[in-house]
Amino acid sequence: MSGQIKDIGEEGVIALARSVKYHSAKRLLKGIGDDCAVIRGAGNSALLVTTDVMLDGVHFAYEWCPPESVGAKLLAVNLSDIAAMGGKPEDAFLCLMLPENLAANWVESFFYGFNKIAQRYGVNLAGGDVSRHPDRITLALTLTGRMRRDEVVYRSRAREGDFIYVSGTLGDAEAGMTLLQAQKSTTPFASYLINRYLYPDPRLELGRLLARTRTATAMIDLSDGLAIGVRQLAQASRLSAEIEVDNIPVSEELTAFISIKNNHNHHPSQSLKPKAQSLMPKAQNLFPQEFALRAGGDYELLFTVKPENVRRVERFHLNHPELPQLTHIGTMKENKTDNDEWTNVLGNGGWKHFR
Amino acid sequence: MSGQIKDIGEEGVIALARSVKYHSAKRLLKGIGDDCAVIRGAGNSALLVTTDVMLDGVHFAYEWCPPESVGAKLLAVNLSDIAAMGGKPEDAFLCLMLPENLAANWVESFFYGFNKIAQRYGVNLAGGDVSRHPDRITLALTLTGRMRRDEVVYRSRAREGDFIYVSGTLGDAEAGMTLLQAQKSTTPFASYLINRYLYPDPRLELGRLLARTRTATAMIDLSDGLAIGVRQLAQASRLSAEIEVDNIPVSEELTAFISIKNNHNHHPSQSLKPKAQSLMPKAQNLFPQEFALRAGGDYELLFTVKPENVRRVERFHLNHPELPQLTHIGTMKENKTDNDEWTNVLGNGGWKHFR
Repeated sequence: MSGQIKDIGEEGVIALARSVKYHSAKRLLKGIGDDCAVIRGAGNSALLVTTDVMLDGVHFAYEWCPPESVGAKLLAVNLSDIAAMGGKPEDAFLCLMLPENLAANWVESFFYGFNKIAQRYGVNLAGGDVSRHPDRITLALTLTGRMRRDEVVYRSRAREGDFIYVSGTLGDAEAGMTLLQAQKSTTPFASYLINRYLYPDPRLELGRLLARTRTATAMIDLSDGLAIGVRQLAQASRLSAEIEVDNIPVSEELTAFISIKNNHNHHPSQSLKPKAQSLMPKAQNLFPQEFALRAGGDYELLFTVKPENVRRVERFHLNHPELPQLTHIGTMKENKTDNDEWTNVLGNGGWKHFR
Repeated sequence: MSGQIKDIGEEGVIALARSVKYHSAKRLLKGIGDDCAVIRGAGNSALLVTTDVMLDGVHFAYEWCPPESVGAKLLAVNLSDIAAMGGKPEDAFLCLMLPENLAANWVESFFYGFNKIAQRYGVNLAGGDVSRHPDRITLALTLTGRMRRDEVVYRSRAREGDFIYVSGTLGDAEAGMTLLQAQKSTTPFASYLINRYLYPDPRLELGRLLARTRTATAMIDLSDGLAIGVRQLAQASRLSAEIEVDNIPVSEELTAFISIKNNHNHHPSQSLKPKAQSLMPKAQNLFPQEFALRAGGDYELLFTVKPENVRRVERFHLNHPELPQLTHIGTMKENKTDNDEWTNVLGNGGWKHFR
């Protein structure tokens, strides 16, 4: 194999990882290719396992992210993967690789933030590894979860005609990152957006409800944005998806951010690459929904629902007023093409770590 | 909290990690502080989880470690943690953080080595995360295992009077690292020692046998060397340990290495710090056993046995000729002191990642 990592990309590395043969497909119900691995447990139980890394300068920035937010977010992004299967989180295993000259109270604050989320969602920090890292703060977390095996929601089980829903509002996190990076936190709407970037809310209660009531046919969390999430879900289900961009839910804070951005044509110097902006035409009059379509980091849930169960979704808020808003944004369609095109609305651009 | 990571050390970071409160002590039978976390499963089963990191320039060297050895070793050192509880390995979760200009065939060879060990021990590569890393190859692996709950061998259950055993021969890996680093692989004994460094053999069969037959009262794997391993086991069991240095098992290849070393007083320039040498007086006539006492990286098992079961250990080879040699090297004693001194033979020096 020739070339470098930047040539084969994240997908190329994952393709190489798939060359490791499964030894026991019977035990491993789902390996690489969903939000969590799913492992057969005793009786009707399933063990979920997910793992995510965070590096200073790639996934967060030491200079402008408080350490407690890094601890909270590292756990939250893994919790979001458990939520996307419909599971209940259990135990976390943390790899901390730290420069020797890092202040000890950075680590203390990191654990303060981690502990707060761990307590809220009933997670044990059950083990890990500690090492020096000569260059930068490098973190990896593995999280287990548990659920009934017959309730697991895979991303591959959407059916033609299913309605596509998304939770909460989209685009907030990336707007918040832009503001935080540009040190524009004094604007009235900024603190809301920055908070959405620093402290994503894993949608565990929603995920559990959708799984327990067997309402979602497929589900995925939106770590890299709606455009990529929809494509991943559609490809896994061998379907295409039609998204009505105008229906994408956006917050009034994002609308205010976009409106100021359109007026100032604001382009901050960037050390972390915002996902949405780098993929978007530099339009003078960008709509918030266009921004929200490609923005990453919201960790909302995207899920599909059979038409006959749509009324159930609409009524969720009657019994669960604390749930985030749920918005119908499109429909699963038959995939008539041989290639991976899944919609005319969205292009093929995507956030890739190596490109 | 004042100071930097290098001031508080690995132990200080782990102490901060313990500030994260356990949410469910009932489910978590053992958290931080053993080779694996032990989680209550259905019936009499237990889930084991361990995680270990490997960084270029800290735990291996890109320049002189073949990529297939890095893949094999990353899995092997985690397998060794499962072996130290007496468990059977199941599923691995890999975090690959890679520089963009790394050759793709490095990764291909890494997976070749990983796959070989995975196939041998029946491990699935069930998930993971891929990211670019701006500086260096940074790897983290989490591995699960399974076993009967009443067979788990903790490091804390040694009793006064128990015999202390160690598997295989010690010191080979660190001698091999020194030779590899100094590019002295042409000496007759070198390839054996280098192989012991690059491809440690996880002692899974031995660990299973000791657990299944309830022969080991306590067990630990020797990742950081015998001196540190004995201290950790003794401290966890609130005992002291008496080691007869002359009984430490060494290979003839190590003996040859030490003999040449004594004659040449050989001190290669070092990019990776050899554990043993940095802690030892630069004696003109070092005995191989003194080297083996402090050398790390052998991944042999250290375990304790009740006096009445010693004959069983001596007879293991009759039915299991493929097992490594098992050597009686000392005895567990009452800890009469208030401090952590556990033997007069060994000092308090230890390998610390941050010091």
